[in-house]
Amino acid sequence: MLTYSFENIGHTPLYEHLYKCIKNDIMNGTLPAGTKLPSKRSFASNLGVSAITVENAYAQLLSEGYIYSRPKKGYYVSTFSRSLLPPRAMPETAVALPEARPVFFADFSSNQTRPDNFPFSVWAKLMRETMQERNNELMTKPPCGGIFELREAIASHLKQFRDMQVQPEQIFVGAGTEYLYGLLVQLLGFDKVYAIENPGYEKIAQIYESYQVRRRFIDMDDCGIRMDRLEESGADVVHISPSHHFPTGIITPVSRRYELLGWAAKSDSRYIIEDDYDSEFRLTGKPIPALQSIDLMEKVIYINTFSKSLTSTMRISYMVLPPGLAQRFLEQMSFYSCTVSNFEQYALMRFIREGYLEKHINRMRNYYHRQRDALLDAIKKSPLSSRVTITEEDSGLHFLMKIDTALSDTELMEKAREKGLRLTALSRYYHRTDSDVEHIFIINYSYLKTEHIPEAIRRLYQCLTD
Amino acid sequence: MLTYSFENIGHTPLYEHLYKCIKNDIMNGTLPAGTKLPSKRSFASNLGVSAITVENAYAQLLSEGYIYSRPKKGYYVSTFSRSLLPPRAMPETAVALPEARPVFFADFSSNQTRPDNFPFSVWAKLMRETMQERNNELMTKPPCGGIFELREAIASHLKQFRDMQVQPEQIFVGAGTEYLYGLLVQLLGFDKVYAIENPGYEKIAQIYESYQVRRRFIDMDDCGIRMDRLEESGADVVHISPSHHFPTGIITPVSRRYELLGWAAKSDSRYIIEDDYDSEFRLTGKPIPALQSIDLMEKVIYINTFSKSLTSTMRISYMVLPPGLAQRFLEQMSFYSCTVSNFEQYALMRFIREGYLEKHINRMRNYYHRQRDALLDAIKKSPLSSRVTITEEDSGLHFLMKIDTALSDTELMEKAREKGLRLTALSRYYHRTDSDVEHIFIINYSYLKTEHIPEAIRRLYQCLTD
Repeated sequence: MLTYSFENIGHTPLYEHLYKCIKNDIMNGTLPAGTKLPSKRSFASNLGVSAITVENAYAQLLSEGYIYSRPKKGYYVSTFSRSLLPPRAMPETAVALPEARPVFFADFSSNQTRPDNFPFSVWAKLMRETMQERNNELMTKPPCGGIFELREAIASHLKQFRDMQVQPEQIFVGAGTEYLYGLLVQLLGFDKVYAIENPGYEKIAQIYESYQVRRRFIDMDDCGIRMDRLEESGADVVHISPSHHFPTGIITPVSRRYELLGWAAKSDSRYIIEDDYDSEFRLTGKPIPALQSIDLMEKVIYINTFSKSLTSTMRISYMVLPPGLAQRFLEQMSFYSCTVSNFEQYALMRFIREGYLEKHINRMRNYYHRQRDALLDAIKKSPLSSRVTITEEDSGLHFLMKIDTALSDTELMEKAREKGLRLTALSRYYHRTDSDVEHIFIINYSYLKTEHIPEAIRRLYQCLTD
Repeated sequence: MLTYSFENIGHTPLYEHLYKCIKNDIMNGTLPAGTKLPSKRSFASNLGVSAITVENAYAQLLSEGYIYSRPKKGYYVSTFSRSLLPPRAMPETAVALPEARPVFFADFSSNQTRPDNFPFSVWAKLMRETMQERNNELMTKPPCGGIFELREAIASHLKQFRDMQVQPEQIFVGAGTEYLYGLLVQLLGFDKVYAIENPGYEKIAQIYESYQVRRRFIDMDDCGIRMDRLEESGADVVHISPSHHFPTGIITPVSRRYELLGWAAKSDSRYIIEDDYDSEFRLTGKPIPALQSIDLMEKVIYINTFSKSLTSTMRISYMVLPPGLAQRFLEQMSFYSCTVSNFEQYALMRFIREGYLEKHINRMRNYYHRQRDALLDAIKKSPLSSRVTITEEDSGLHFLMKIDTALSDTELMEKAREKGLRLTALSRYYHRTDSDVEHIFIINYSYLKTEHIPEAIRRLYQCLTD
């Protein structure tokens, strides 16, 4: 009969040691395929261990397929055993990662939140209190649209900031607008045609492409997306940012908004996705009423995010579905779990409800105002001022700067890069590049260090004169 | 010329007051369409305000479409203005919400974490320290696969617990496995055929349906998915849980695993999605090597989650892609932002790295062990014991109980419900119900209150005898 030593096995459980010994003998051929193993009882008494030890070792071998059992006969070494390969070593083909993002002296492209602008102490306090007071709720699966109290808080916030009348039941919280776009394709249909703005935020086009739905790029005029082109396109769903278009800064006036609603009303399958991503930060004037708030036909899906008002690294966005679509979502897609952590949903609920969000937005609006002024001032004092024209400067987080230069956009961006400046040309946001938009750059000031601004402008001017 | 009073306007900014006055006159017809507005300068001097006040009021009216400008002529009242509708009132059609989930005396279907099992104090400490020490990183956009340090910690965890050799670059973190399944459809292709287990976790079938890809339900035998049926199905991708199938508890032996790898190797488009959702909690024996760890052909996509080992309400899962697919993901889909909050990624990284996860899993395994024993003991002491047969009791979170009864599954579930028990029949997890599986129920003990167990068993017996 088989025999194994149980000496010097340290803390290894007896059954595991026995399992390894037998497995080893199977693998090296000492126990060839078809060999009958000893009965549990006799093997145990022979080895001086309990029957349960042998049973556990056999169970493990059985479940891994090294042995098989024949009813009332016993256990046999499996024929597959010899062919077992050793576990795979670390794969040698390394995955080529994209280059780490370099640190710029001044990044005119980033819209990240600066660490000193995030309300860490308030957030830490709310998170601590949430964990103390909400143990049960934190462990309870929320509805697919998110925690109801958070959706109530968002509904109040929308009433206060956007004069929107929505029920919490219409609100669906998700881990970023990108995720919500994907849900909308599933809800509205893979067979639909999706119209997007040209130029526009490139991620939107990438997401529709990744979902393999038909896309149409629609040109813009001074009022937003062109209605004639939209009609021609055969689109069912149009995805727009009428409050503040990225990157041009165009604000769609009410007249065009009604035309869009009129377009949507012509067919049951037509919908408008209204992306209202930074309406909180317009520097002058009140924001224009949301399309959602003048929609009587249940055609507008409103999307917004806390990426700009809090931080994009927390991943909390939401959409407001018209009642009919909200109902359809519940019927067809409520199996999806909400993708935002309960912990952050409860903390955010309190952040909104206790007035911290409003204070934070006001503070950030003032900060962006000062950043913009510092930047405009630095440009004014620099010889750069005679070479540039600035537009859309009230948009809140960025403006457009047309530069009088013979350099191509690519050349200027490359020169800027060498000087530690990150700069993106407007032309980069066009589906097909339009030569009219050469020499216009997006100047985002949300992530600039205030004290770097004068030097950044000096360097930018150098790019034109070196 | 138009004139308005600026008295008694309180804290309203001058421009906003002026904007409202003009808008009001447009809306009530005092200023009909086509009316030319006064020039900014003369209007300002007439009203005794600054030109900038008039400019801001006009800008607001312009952007909302109440007026339009004609180059070198001035501003005119828009023709659209009179048709402007008041903002929509709160929608009357309420969204019919699914009924609130009732609270059960004993819920044999839930796999939520009990609040007393979550390590709140450790998590609160790690979160607090993270916010104190990591301000910069918390505000920095992570790579699309997630924070690198977290992926390193997961790679070490997989090495230690599953003897898997993976590079952090192969790991992609996301907000729940449901989200990751969606990414995989985008990565592997909407044109592919996806095979899923029958019976199986119903959400998987729902997700593939929501993505409108072709699904095939593959029957199981005692070793897992049937190879003959898989071959016949024409599937490209097979989605399985070989370590512990839900709900049957079947563990796929090594022999079948090699057959699966052999199947996958036959075509470039074939892949295996290995869902390893609760391998940490097997109560006896070591878990079987993951398919991923014996895959030499880069055919296995390994998926796991912290839903079972921590809590499902935090939404943190991950997938391990073979190097080639990881590369393809980076090339095609790296525009997607990681869906998990930086805050929770950093806290989880420390939770793993500092050994808390390992301790927590051990504690939970012991807890589940005790829960199972308490439940088996209560059944043994009850007359119920003569009416039931229990199988798959080592699986860790649930077992199967066959009940000797003339009641149909629906009748018994309804009776149980009336007594405050939530019970789900195995038959509910079959795509087409198989009459052989009547009278078998899934008994999940992870969410039961220990002190409720004897009474819950008493009530269950009552259902059979009342």
